[in-house]
Amino acid sequence: MVKEYIESNQQRFLDELFDWLRIPSVSADSRHKNDVRRAAEFLRDKLASAGVDTVEICETPGHPIVYAEKIINPALPTVVVYGHYDVQPPDPLDLWHSPPFEPVVKEGKIYARGSCDDKGQVYMHIKAFEAMMKLNALPCNVKFMIEGEEEVGSENLANFVKENHDRLKGDIILISDTAMISLEHPSITTGLRGLSYMEVEVTGPNRDLHSGVYGGAVANPINVLSKMIASLHDESGRVTIPGFYDAVDKLSAAEREAINKAPFNQDNYKKELGIDEVQGEKGYTTLERTGIRPTLDVNGIWGGYTGEGAKTVLPSKAYAKISMRLVPHQNNHAISELFTKHFLSIAPPSVKVKVTALHGGEPAVTPTDSEAFRAASAAFVDVFGKAPIPTRDGGSIPIVALFKKELGLDTVLMGFGFDSDAIHSPNEHYGVKNFLLGIETIVSFYKHYSKN
Amino acid sequence: MVKEYIESNQQRFLDELFDWLRIPSVSADSRHKNDVRRAAEFLRDKLASAGVDTVEICETPGHPIVYAEKIINPALPTVVVYGHYDVQPPDPLDLWHSPPFEPVVKEGKIYARGSCDDKGQVYMHIKAFEAMMKLNALPCNVKFMIEGEEEVGSENLANFVKENHDRLKGDIILISDTAMISLEHPSITTGLRGLSYMEVEVTGPNRDLHSGVYGGAVANPINVLSKMIASLHDESGRVTIPGFYDAVDKLSAAEREAINKAPFNQDNYKKELGIDEVQGEKGYTTLERTGIRPTLDVNGIWGGYTGEGAKTVLPSKAYAKISMRLVPHQNNHAISELFTKHFLSIAPPSVKVKVTALHGGEPAVTPTDSEAFRAASAAFVDVFGKAPIPTRDGGSIPIVALFKKELGLDTVLMGFGFDSDAIHSPNEHYGVKNFLLGIETIVSFYKHYSKN
Repeated sequence: MVKEYIESNQQRFLDELFDWLRIPSVSADSRHKNDVRRAAEFLRDKLASAGVDTVEICETPGHPIVYAEKIINPALPTVVVYGHYDVQPPDPLDLWHSPPFEPVVKEGKIYARGSCDDKGQVYMHIKAFEAMMKLNALPCNVKFMIEGEEEVGSENLANFVKENHDRLKGDIILISDTAMISLEHPSITTGLRGLSYMEVEVTGPNRDLHSGVYGGAVANPINVLSKMIASLHDESGRVTIPGFYDAVDKLSAAEREAINKAPFNQDNYKKELGIDEVQGEKGYTTLERTGIRPTLDVNGIWGGYTGEGAKTVLPSKAYAKISMRLVPHQNNHAISELFTKHFLSIAPPSVKVKVTALHGGEPAVTPTDSEAFRAASAAFVDVFGKAPIPTRDGGSIPIVALFKKELGLDTVLMGFGFDSDAIHSPNEHYGVKNFLLGIETIVSFYKHYSKN
Repeated sequence: MVKEYIESNQQRFLDELFDWLRIPSVSADSRHKNDVRRAAEFLRDKLASAGVDTVEICETPGHPIVYAEKIINPALPTVVVYGHYDVQPPDPLDLWHSPPFEPVVKEGKIYARGSCDDKGQVYMHIKAFEAMMKLNALPCNVKFMIEGEEEVGSENLANFVKENHDRLKGDIILISDTAMISLEHPSITTGLRGLSYMEVEVTGPNRDLHSGVYGGAVANPINVLSKMIASLHDESGRVTIPGFYDAVDKLSAAEREAINKAPFNQDNYKKELGIDEVQGEKGYTTLERTGIRPTLDVNGIWGGYTGEGAKTVLPSKAYAKISMRLVPHQNNHAISELFTKHFLSIAPPSVKVKVTALHGGEPAVTPTDSEAFRAASAAFVDVFGKAPIPTRDGGSIPIVALFKKELGLDTVLMGFGFDSDAIHSPNEHYGVKNFLLGIETIVSFYKHYSKN
């Protein structure tokens, strides 16, 4: 019955999602402030027409949070759905094969910024809710909290949660903002890496200099920054910041074995990425490197002359954005501090260094022995025909740790994207099949979860 | 008499120069192609009205060369004046206190891109020539060859020189495109560093990736590039490219002592640049580091997300522009090849690296025992009241080596800029006094040189 409803409405579902994807809700770019709001208003209207009791655009000092609820019986369990309607910046634009905010379906995939992360996945929940309402099949209460600042660190969500403990009372958090292995190998994410995101500025001379006149005698901030960045990893690929690994969870041989049982083909992985070799911390497999080990990556670097041709400048400044992925028990504030202290300490006296923490989030592990996890597993069995594999995921959803701390609630991460969906990259996409099966799986989750 | 002519015409001289400086003749930027030509046409007209016999805009595959001559008597010596009318790109624009192509005089200095390098210095020669013509005081023949591609490697000048051996016959090359120590310490550059300018591209995965999903398992091209750049210097600040120092001139203790006799105050130098410490190759002074030692500087670096806020991208590509200043006997083609070979050899198998040589020039030493050098010295004594100090200069004027090789001509580098003139930087400027005294000194050079 749900299957039929989805089938007969799928074109409308996609049309609506496309309208939403056309709104460039880039939270990091202040020029898109109004677009972010328009995306919130769109969501509010769709929640209203799907049948919630109340829906509200909640103002914050930044982008607003859309909150809605449907209480059918206070005695029944309550599912709190979290997601985000903001998206990553689309650049570099010239690498997109079709414009990022003009969604198209090619070979069964929706190409658009936000198609997978996270508008497409949020919209499954709206449509699953609509289906249950239309079919008179909603078995429990549901609350929606969809924010507009996830891609810039969810700065105002923590306050919102703190100020709305009563309103957010519930039994489980349900999030679709992660990936599964494949349609043949459904999986549920049970661990998430945290994040410390830093920006560094290295200043040499007080102005750009002629490299012929001063080169060799005055510290070049790009050379210095390169050296400082290079020193952040040792020859084994380990991060050299003192104390960085102190809190890292040590997994047992059995746990590591379990992680490496997930279906993974290194040759296909390399082929798909166009690389000859993987690279990472010695002594760990690719699945371990992205799942259970903390990392440090430069996300952006700039300085000096970057235009056409040659300019012999010895620049005054060089910059980098550096982020660290954290694993359970590492604290993002502590790691940001360790980074700052270390980075300042390795600066030579010939330059001045400024370090700013841009944003962060704590790592989290979700329980696999709960009613909610069992309900999610059963839902996957219903729709995909097999039990999902628990996986540790590389991405960060800082809100998971926050929910546990503030509301005492566990989370189920029922994600339907693929790692290859190019989220945060040009040509982000999301399978139409993933979208439709996701709606079905969510409905099934409500059914199993409410049986308890 | 010359002094009076300069004095009574100085406002017009400056007005004309300002008109020229208003033309943004940025040779590196193809959007300014027409401006470069307009600057050539301006120069042609001014040479014509100053009284040359013939003047011509000579086409090349790139920007044109302006060639003019005045032959008063074939039996007399011939001075060939070289200079360039193209300028460096003005960015970063936001650091200029006044627009780069709207010249203004502040505290006795002309602020504009090209004011010192090299339009302002070329214009001294045009006005010195005009003065000698008006005063019937031109004592020898003169040829002008002013190019429009110096800031992009003088690509087409070599061919022009090769194809015009007869036309360019002369006795000495005279160039004003260098700096003097100060008005109190006039100096003449007697050595110039060469240049190899490279661009490198490091490619990791075939697309930008989410650093949370892939970070730690896939080589990050920015991290890799930083490490490769860092490895180009050892702990003593020496360049690690095998063979890099093989051809470097070893100076005697006496020669090094002579270099270090030039007036130089390290504290003022640091203060003026806003740095706490200088930095460079161990065992050498600042004057040696910029004068007689080869160097390697990153002139620009870019990759990943460089916009506002935080984007957790593991980029596909990272780039850098890297240049090396060369000293006598190093060959720029050989060094470019050594760099390329070495840079490719240090790339890990997890990335692909591309190296391109953008342009280069050979180092040069000019003789100090020639008639022309003695004439230049005498001219400085006339105008500044003391003999100029011979100095080794950090910048590159590749044409000097080319002239020697192709035409068999030595060069006198009679420059009137200061190292602090911020050439290639925001707020480039040139002293009005330097400009006017330069004209006088040039006229005096012609007088002394023709006496021989």
